[in-house]
Amino acid sequence: MKHYSSIHDIENINSWIEEAKTIKANPLKHAHLGKHKTIGLLFFNSSLRTRLSTQKAALNLGMNPIVMNVSGDAWGIEFENGTIMNGNTAEHIKEAAAVVSQYCDIIAVRAFPTLTDKVKDESEYVMNSFMQYASVPIVNMESATGHPLQGLTDAITISENTKKIKPKVVLSWAPHVKALPHAVANSFVQAMQKMDVEFVITNPEGYNLNPQITGNTPIISNQNDAFKNADFVYAKNWSSYQEYGQILNTDPNWMITKTKLGNAKFMHCLPVRRNLVVEDAVLDSKNALVIEQANNRTYAAQLVLKKILEKL
Amino acid sequence: MKHYSSIHDIENINSWIEEAKTIKANPLKHAHLGKHKTIGLLFFNSSLRTRLSTQKAALNLGMNPIVMNVSGDAWGIEFENGTIMNGNTAEHIKEAAAVVSQYCDIIAVRAFPTLTDKVKDESEYVMNSFMQYASVPIVNMESATGHPLQGLTDAITISENTKKIKPKVVLSWAPHVKALPHAVANSFVQAMQKMDVEFVITNPEGYNLNPQITGNTPIISNQNDAFKNADFVYAKNWSSYQEYGQILNTDPNWMITKTKLGNAKFMHCLPVRRNLVVEDAVLDSKNALVIEQANNRTYAAQLVLKKILEKL
Amino acid sequence: MKHYSSIHDIENINSWIEEAKTIKANPLKHAHLGKHKTIGLLFFNSSLRTRLSTQKAALNLGMNPIVMNVSGDAWGIEFENGTIMNGNTAEHIKEAAAVVSQYCDIIAVRAFPTLTDKVKDESEYVMNSFMQYASVPIVNMESATGHPLQGLTDAITISENTKKIKPKVVLSWAPHVKALPHAVANSFVQAMQKMDVEFVITNPEGYNLNPQITGNTPIISNQNDAFKNADFVYAKNWSSYQEYGQILNTDPNWMITKTKLGNAKFMHCLPVRRNLVVEDAVLDSKNALVIEQANNRTYAAQLVLKKILEKL
Repeated sequence: MKHYSSIHDIENINSWIEEAKTIKANPLKHAHLGKHKTIGLLFFNSSLRTRLSTQKAALNLGMNPIVMNVSGDAWGIEFENGTIMNGNTAEHIKEAAAVVSQYCDIIAVRAFPTLTDKVKDESEYVMNSFMQYASVPIVNMESATGHPLQGLTDAITISENTKKIKPKVVLSWAPHVKALPHAVANSFVQAMQKMDVEFVITNPEGYNLNPQITGNTPIISNQNDAFKNADFVYAKNWSSYQEYGQILNTDPNWMITKTKLGNAKFMHCLPVRRNLVVEDAVLDSKNALVIEQANNRTYAAQLVLKKILEKL
Repeated sequence: MKHYSSIHDIENINSWIEEAKTIKANPLKHAHLGKHKTIGLLFFNSSLRTRLSTQKAALNLGMNPIVMNVSGDAWGIEFENGTIMNGNTAEHIKEAAAVVSQYCDIIAVRAFPTLTDKVKDESEYVMNSFMQYASVPIVNMESATGHPLQGLTDAITISENTKKIKPKVVLSWAPHVKALPHAVANSFVQAMQKMDVEFVITNPEGYNLNPQITGNTPIISNQNDAFKNADFVYAKNWSSYQEYGQILNTDPNWMITKTKLGNAKFMHCLPVRRNLVVEDAVLDSKNALVIEQANNRTYAAQLVLKKILEKL
Repeated sequence: MKHYSSIHDIENINSWIEEAKTIKANPLKHAHLGKHKTIGLLFFNSSLRTRLSTQKAALNLGMNPIVMNVSGDAWGIEFENGTIMNGNTAEHIKEAAAVVSQYCDIIAVRAFPTLTDKVKDESEYVMNSFMQYASVPIVNMESATGHPLQGLTDAITISENTKKIKPKVVLSWAPHVKALPHAVANSFVQAMQKMDVEFVITNPEGYNLNPQITGNTPIISNQNDAFKNADFVYAKNWSSYQEYGQILNTDPNWMITKTKLGNAKFMHCLPVRRNLVVEDAVLDSKNALVIEQANNRTYAAQLVLKKILEKL
């Protein structure tokens, strides 16, 4: 692994999970590994958990984090090749990525999709341009189609909290008022496909995720059927993939309730809108793992950074 | 003291002042106390002194500061319970506070009042929600009704600069063009009430501070009378408390002048508008303690963080 | 040298260049020089390279960098003396500079020109006010009329890449869609005038830089003539100096092309607009030194900070 751009960069998810647990048990064991090394965190979009947990992970490894809100702190970046740059963009990604590589030993990037241009989003032009033009490793802090630090976190959290060898895990679509990306859902699907779990997805008509990602994973349109005997329910809203970026359904019956959940553990990447995606009774119960997921973000990031640092 | 949310969290102001002076004399004495500890500075509002001095204090203790401008870097936070979150807020304080607690050993928060909703402001819902839902100590970097790091700073500064056992200290309202919070004035009043000083307040009609805070402290409507034999004059504008958040008076005769001040020392929390709150001749004279107050912000913060770190 | 505000603060450019090369060869040699020292980076304007390279330089010296976007994080600063501050500015530079000096051992400032008020810009009121009112050394991270960290960087880069004892260096104006400052061009001119190079400037009519800066340096209006036998071509757009801040010419014939460049090395401070200032074929060739210039920004800044730290 040079870059960490998607769940596919995880060679062996079980050994990664075990290593992450070791790090969590002793987070300062490698406090000198990153000494005098700098990580640049470039945010094209807002961030709370990723911003804090990636900094925390870097600090646990002795690294110096440098944070930049690209649009607010600098200027528009051009990703197209060959254009005459007489418009709103002031610097080409060829220079920007190469330049940041002069100052940072690792570059982490967050860049959301347009949700209007499917082809452009699926090209992952931001993440891929950084990987192409930077001379240092790139970490995906959520891109157009994936959020692999979150997916790894979720795999760790399920492994920590399961009482069964092969638990049943359900990814459920839930309602929302805004058109949201597919990144978290995609990476969760990819992570579950690598684990020894019984995994199903449930979503309304028109909300199937990219079939190239879901592959053989069963998609069940009846949420109640999908939740039967579930050990973990992972809730997430996403906009339609087929009718790209559209909101086709806001049916509150898809909200996760305590009654639906039963004894299953509840997971969500956060931020979550209460009483829209999931009711208070779920989040305020012991079945909610969301804060522990947030905690595990640190150790997922720390594992990824450790693996990259060891190869520098 | 678990949290530092108000001047009332100071058990013994005289011993705190002495300890702050010790820290100031040797600010790096405890440079390892905060090693591998992280403080999250969450700003819902602008900040210069607090932003820099609290970072400096944390660095002097060996801590790692992580700074977040909440609205710019992340998203709107919901503080009401039970609401269906289908509006502008994307994350509930229950999650936000618990999540940040996963990455930070101490959380410091700045959140100004609305100055339109007295009941809401006095509920201190932001600060109290963080104290309720975070699992780590909270430090108030200025809330709706108090600025206890400033109040502690001011107590230290008066103690350092007094030539008398019991100096006379005057808090004077001064004119301003914007409606300002009561936080600094409130915390100053509370700090002075704990110290062995002769303390009076002077302000125009309609500008009395919350009587539950001023208590027995004399309020004198004639500024000249109040200033007689003053050793320290602390100037500050605030909007009306009774006619909540209103500007009732902009009379330039309330501006602090060199003539009025005489030999008294001049104090202000800064930022200060010159020739509106106070004339140049005062700020440019040796009687102005404002820069030393700014300096002492570091040691007040460092004292508070040290006390919290010692109990972690 | 107390402050580093202009190229004129370089006592001996050749010895500075040699020392910078030594630092580049072993950037962590002085990793304890800045221990427990803090540098405040104050940005009144956007920044990518300067923001990152100055932080990197500070970290290499063991310093703690604190970054502030002045307008976004704090409030408007007043630079005029004697005004009644009842407008949009909330703090006077007298207080702001003195206050930041309480928390930072060095203050670095970026503040662009208005490009509408020549007298004001040439007064360098921001940089000079900081030097006047701060009690600590000031570093210019690009001011109204100079960018001396860039100029020093460029001198280092030419010294590293020249194959001749006295290379020919050409500063060429190039087209742009926005009115840009003169700061980079000015500091480059001043740096070249101190070096043992054959130096000429080429620009269209109406684009001569401040004659007090260009002095005896030849200004050639025919770009092709100027480029003859050039070893280094430094491209930069600037707005008119005579018709201050105006765009008089957007002639694409002034764009730097591979054909024009021949075997000369290409330099630019970045960010650069591709196919407007310079064509892709130049930037994508081995003759482009732009990324190495960006890299050298770290060592130029580190040299300046080291010299300041040694005198603290």
